[in-house]
Amino acid sequence: MKKISILGSTGSIGTQTLDVVAMHPESFEIEGLAAGSNIALLLEQVRRFKPRRVSVATKELAAEIRASLPSGIEVFSGNEGLVEIAAGGDAEMVVTAVMGSVGLQSTLAAIEAGRHIGLANKETLVTAGHLVKALAVRKGVKLLPVDSEHSAIFQCMNGENREDVASITITASGGSFRDYTRDQLKNVTVEDALRHPNWSMGAKITIDSATMVNKGLEVIEAHWLFGLSYEQINVLLHPESIIHSYVEFRDCSIIAQLGTPDMRVPIQYALTYPERWESPAQRLSLAEVGRLTFREMDYERYPALRLAIDCGKAGGTATTAFNAANEIAVARFLRGEIPFLRIEEIISEVLQRHINSGSPDLEQIEFTDRTVRELASSL
Amino acid sequence: MKKISILGSTGSIGTQTLDVVAMHPESFEIEGLAAGSNIALLLEQVRRFKPRRVSVATKELAAEIRASLPSGIEVFSGNEGLVEIAAGGDAEMVVTAVMGSVGLQSTLAAIEAGRHIGLANKETLVTAGHLVKALAVRKGVKLLPVDSEHSAIFQCMNGENREDVASITITASGGSFRDYTRDQLKNVTVEDALRHPNWSMGAKITIDSATMVNKGLEVIEAHWLFGLSYEQINVLLHPESIIHSYVEFRDCSIIAQLGTPDMRVPIQYALTYPERWESPAQRLSLAEVGRLTFREMDYERYPALRLAIDCGKAGGTATTAFNAANEIAVARFLRGEIPFLRIEEIISEVLQRHINSGSPDLEQIEFTDRTVRELASSL
Repeated sequence: MKKISILGSTGSIGTQTLDVVAMHPESFEIEGLAAGSNIALLLEQVRRFKPRRVSVATKELAAEIRASLPSGIEVFSGNEGLVEIAAGGDAEMVVTAVMGSVGLQSTLAAIEAGRHIGLANKETLVTAGHLVKALAVRKGVKLLPVDSEHSAIFQCMNGENREDVASITITASGGSFRDYTRDQLKNVTVEDALRHPNWSMGAKITIDSATMVNKGLEVIEAHWLFGLSYEQINVLLHPESIIHSYVEFRDCSIIAQLGTPDMRVPIQYALTYPERWESPAQRLSLAEVGRLTFREMDYERYPALRLAIDCGKAGGTATTAFNAANEIAVARFLRGEIPFLRIEEIISEVLQRHINSGSPDLEQIEFTDRTVRELASSL
Repeated sequence: MKKISILGSTGSIGTQTLDVVAMHPESFEIEGLAAGSNIALLLEQVRRFKPRRVSVATKELAAEIRASLPSGIEVFSGNEGLVEIAAGGDAEMVVTAVMGSVGLQSTLAAIEAGRHIGLANKETLVTAGHLVKALAVRKGVKLLPVDSEHSAIFQCMNGENREDVASITITASGGSFRDYTRDQLKNVTVEDALRHPNWSMGAKITIDSATMVNKGLEVIEAHWLFGLSYEQINVLLHPESIIHSYVEFRDCSIIAQLGTPDMRVPIQYALTYPERWESPAQRLSLAEVGRLTFREMDYERYPALRLAIDCGKAGGTATTAFNAANEIAVARFLRGEIPFLRIEEIISEVLQRHINSGSPDLEQIEFTDRTVRELASSL
């Protein structure tokens, strides 16, 4: 019986992780669940999965749910609550499915406590890859990617020597607006942006797909996860999202991972690695799909991707600044405060003013994160 | 230094194997070369690769070349010569690149002598898979596939548990006549048939691609090589030959191997396994390729494939009969004696008259091979 805790249990990845857990009740047990403010869903999850510990966004929410919980369940709240779920109890694995940079502290705490990580929180590696990677190595903790692209690359490297890897290619669907010109992007609405062609995901990541920021974060994440230089990481437009990503080896052989777009497959792989178990996903029929298409990434069309890669190459606090600026800008777009193209502009303006500092510690990363958020909110 | 012998050194796979060897002179050494009657090329290969032992098709050819060879080189001939190159000397690995069922005896001799096999001779497994597989297991000998499709599957299974494999899919370009209807096939010429759209290969295998017999042989080979039932082996039309084949696992994840069509990649992989070395193949750019297409296999259009699979399922001497009938029919087509569609008819007529016998020994297999050849020549 593998004990699992989930940070962000009511989000898209969190609920799909619980779907996977529910399919294998003989093998998985839920130790802890951390949610935000979706109390109704959390209570339903508690009834079904019987965790020993839960956490919610605030003390008020914690007080509110306590009466509805079966006795014996410990209730926590806020950032400390997140850390409690991550590092307390006795989960063998923690799935970090919270959105944004709040995931960093709790992920570090989970690694410090020796838990293997099902890594769905991109910002962990984006903002503090050097710290997270070093700690994971020191603690002998596995960082198992949950993202479909990184899971694909991880699967393609199975049984291979890392030094034989020539490059990796992360595929990108192009997002909701992939057939729009820059000009057509001027007046798109939030509703338009949330209509992703292939994947069903949370709002923030759907916007990040449309701006290609998501792919930029993935490139940075891949750099840390697989120990590759930025020159070894390519991005390819592949509208059908069937090839989830691939690895090219030095003998010119390419190994790719394919499937229907169903996040439960990479989630389950992180949970069962190195085994593969039956999955409820739909089998892929390439004959039914008929054709797969590919186009060079267009960095003019998606300038935020170039910005992300430049930040990755610069290192230091640049990626933290990039990420924080984007989070604020996307939140503002989702609230209807700014037009779609302003997201990229805000990131760019923030980076122009950002003074990079190399090999930052956690405090410097948090300082950058905080100050950039203030700046991005004011632009 | 890895010592290699090649059976069929002047053929398409043989010369490409020597290309690979020539690229890594610090790692590979040629122990023996067996050719047929292309003496001029063999002598050139001898000068370049300095084998200790060579063999040619007949005693007369052996006598003819002896004077042209440097002293100290042993010369053999005929079937015994092939066995001498396969099992004599001290090669660590034998690449079995001879065409047709003559490869069987020498491959068995090489396995008996404990040499790892770079398996390019399809007929070895097609006609005697049960004997070859059992002997290889008993001798601890690796059967490393050289065929691009089987190499692809072999690579996709790297680091995976065999019991997690749900199915494999072998891709098929469709051959020289893939855009022809059955009706248009009536009057095609040998010249037309030899124009394969993607791969540069020998004449016999190019015809086998056009009839889809080649894919049938590959299915049977895959059955033995990977220990899969025929229900687990699919064939998919993929005109671009970029995805060389793939494996679907029980979690619905598909791992595929891709590349430009260049036989030197799978040949080299068999030689360097489990390592991957630099290769002179052209890197694949999916952006340049632009699109990959797929269609269900059409068993009405390619009836020989269905026949092959039925023979595989029947087991016994059925696959030997299928293969021998095809070899004779293709040779007759290449000599201009019969029209293209007569190839399938001859195979079908032979199989209708064939009385299958289960678990045949080598003698029975050879008897079937001989009698079917006589029959197929007379039809």
